[in-house]
Amino acid sequence: MKKKFKVGLLGATGIVGKTFLRVLHERDFPVSSLFLFASSRSAGQTADFGGEKIIISELTHENVMCGMDVAFFAVDGDLSREYAPVLAKNGCLVVDNSSAWRTDPEVPLVVPEVNGEEAFKHKNIIANPNCSTAQAVVALNPLHLAYGIKRIVYSTYQSVSGATIKGMEDLERTLAGEPHKFFPYPIAGNCIPHIDTFGSDGYTGEETKMIFETKKIMRAPQLKITATTVRVPVFVGHSESINVEFEKPFDIDELKKVLANAPGVTVTDDPSANLYPTPLAAAGSDDVYVGRIRRDASVESGVNLWVVSDNLRKGAATNAVQIAELVLGVNAGSKN
Amino acid sequence: MKKKFKVGLLGATGIVGKTFLRVLHERDFPVSSLFLFASSRSAGQTADFGGEKIIISELTHENVMCGMDVAFFAVDGDLSREYAPVLAKNGCLVVDNSSAWRTDPEVPLVVPEVNGEEAFKHKNIIANPNCSTAQAVVALNPLHLAYGIKRIVYSTYQSVSGATIKGMEDLERTLAGEPHKFFPYPIAGNCIPHIDTFGSDGYTGEETKMIFETKKIMRAPQLKITATTVRVPVFVGHSESINVEFEKPFDIDELKKVLANAPGVTVTDDPSANLYPTPLAAAGSDDVYVGRIRRDASVESGVNLWVVSDNLRKGAATNAVQIAELVLGVNAGSKN
Repeated sequence: MKKKFKVGLLGATGIVGKTFLRVLHERDFPVSSLFLFASSRSAGQTADFGGEKIIISELTHENVMCGMDVAFFAVDGDLSREYAPVLAKNGCLVVDNSSAWRTDPEVPLVVPEVNGEEAFKHKNIIANPNCSTAQAVVALNPLHLAYGIKRIVYSTYQSVSGATIKGMEDLERTLAGEPHKFFPYPIAGNCIPHIDTFGSDGYTGEETKMIFETKKIMRAPQLKITATTVRVPVFVGHSESINVEFEKPFDIDELKKVLANAPGVTVTDDPSANLYPTPLAAAGSDDVYVGRIRRDASVESGVNLWVVSDNLRKGAATNAVQIAELVLGVNAGSKN
Repeated sequence: MKKKFKVGLLGATGIVGKTFLRVLHERDFPVSSLFLFASSRSAGQTADFGGEKIIISELTHENVMCGMDVAFFAVDGDLSREYAPVLAKNGCLVVDNSSAWRTDPEVPLVVPEVNGEEAFKHKNIIANPNCSTAQAVVALNPLHLAYGIKRIVYSTYQSVSGATIKGMEDLERTLAGEPHKFFPYPIAGNCIPHIDTFGSDGYTGEETKMIFETKKIMRAPQLKITATTVRVPVFVGHSESINVEFEKPFDIDELKKVLANAPGVTVTDDPSANLYPTPLAAAGSDDVYVGRIRRDASVESGVNLWVVSDNLRKGAATNAVQIAELVLGVNAGSKN
């Protein structure tokens, strides 16, 4: 008989939390019982899990002591720092979606297609990467293995859902002509080159995360990386213009084959038929879409890529569930 | 007495044509008489020029023979190829906004702040650059003169007005939930990495133009350049994430001063006060806005810039009027 798990979800009412519920159901994750937690505001309400109504409990230290085997964290960094060590100590595997643990050398930061082995070094906490980084490394790692990446220049086009439901509401609000309340400027009809807070070097937290996390996940501290991250008026789906310089020469058709054969990647690249990835098309799917694959003649061995994925799925819930499947030895029954 | 000119505008009813009328009036261009031309559909209608109603004539070979001193072309490449040589032969200075003449070695391609001297080599036709290129070189040329640019990586975030009124209507249409008719995919809530037609090398016409035109305007054929150009759901204002590698070392504060002192550039760069350029803020203004100025530590001497400008103005009408002012010896009375 297939082993089943007592599964918890902290932050069940946010958009990432709701995506977790959909992904767990779609992938047929072996759940014996499901515990949902949110703030006192949502406690007592129900959430939908494959047609079943599950009551949401208030997130308290008492309530989480319910013997969970695995807990998915879709809460902010402060709550993660508060609850993850407690649950981990209690034998629960925590897969955390916040940035709280990603830089901790004791905590694996995992994208299963890239560094799944690292997940098994966990001490009951595994960090899920930043959404922009997760999709990028799925596309970049196979190329790194084949040609040795020297340098990466990231420019991102990130959807408002990466900024929680408040970001989505601010896009709706400003599209309706109402004043903005959440982003520093109206996001409708605009591009805002500011995600997370600014550091003293002029880089945003999002840019710093992409640079650090790419190196950690690809286990390539020597990589040269820079990034500019930008919020665009898209509801779901992050896009990335990625310029890559390799150590070794490559054949462009062979490179496309490397990508086409890479786990988690779908190559959508036929300019003659107007085929390339877009966030609107990628939303709702678990894959990382790669297109506009072209040699960059401005360096000896370089390529330009356009990488798109659903930031709530591969950038958050899907990747976290894949991590748990890997560590718990679950054969994913993904319907996607 | 100040010399005045018989001025023509071919393509008076498009969004670039309308912007020409506003810019000519705002800058107090010395017009003795103004001749407006459009297709037979619009002939007989009037257009507003500083409160004055000007009747629009049909664009025909007979009608354009009205003794114009200077003609601004806001028509497509085919019409430009048809009419520019005729008017030029007749002694009229043509400033053309299409891509028809930009690659012609006999035709200067001019951004006055960058290569104004070239304009005087004209044989009555001067080409106005592609909108994305014009704003980029205003920001890049002063840095090239100071530090010697080796390589540029462009990623653009281009507004729908760059694709004529049809692009703006398609954004309005898709924002209203109606099916798209103009872009290959719905542009509302989306990013489309496809501007102009695809070449056999996988690059779009827009990307190829940015690479070629940057070199021609900056008179730097040795520059290494690559580009990814993307349409975003913004009505007016193009944004660009530009990664630059220099020959020489630089001090970041000095580099910011070079930009602040450069003609046509406004530096908007104070992260601590959430100050950086956005297309919504730049729309309606003639300047090129530069912000997010940060050292790129992934190369020996590199910088990241975020460059934003009104694509209908500096990217089209304003730059063309500035070219005419320069060549005709007009002292611009810009109110902007």
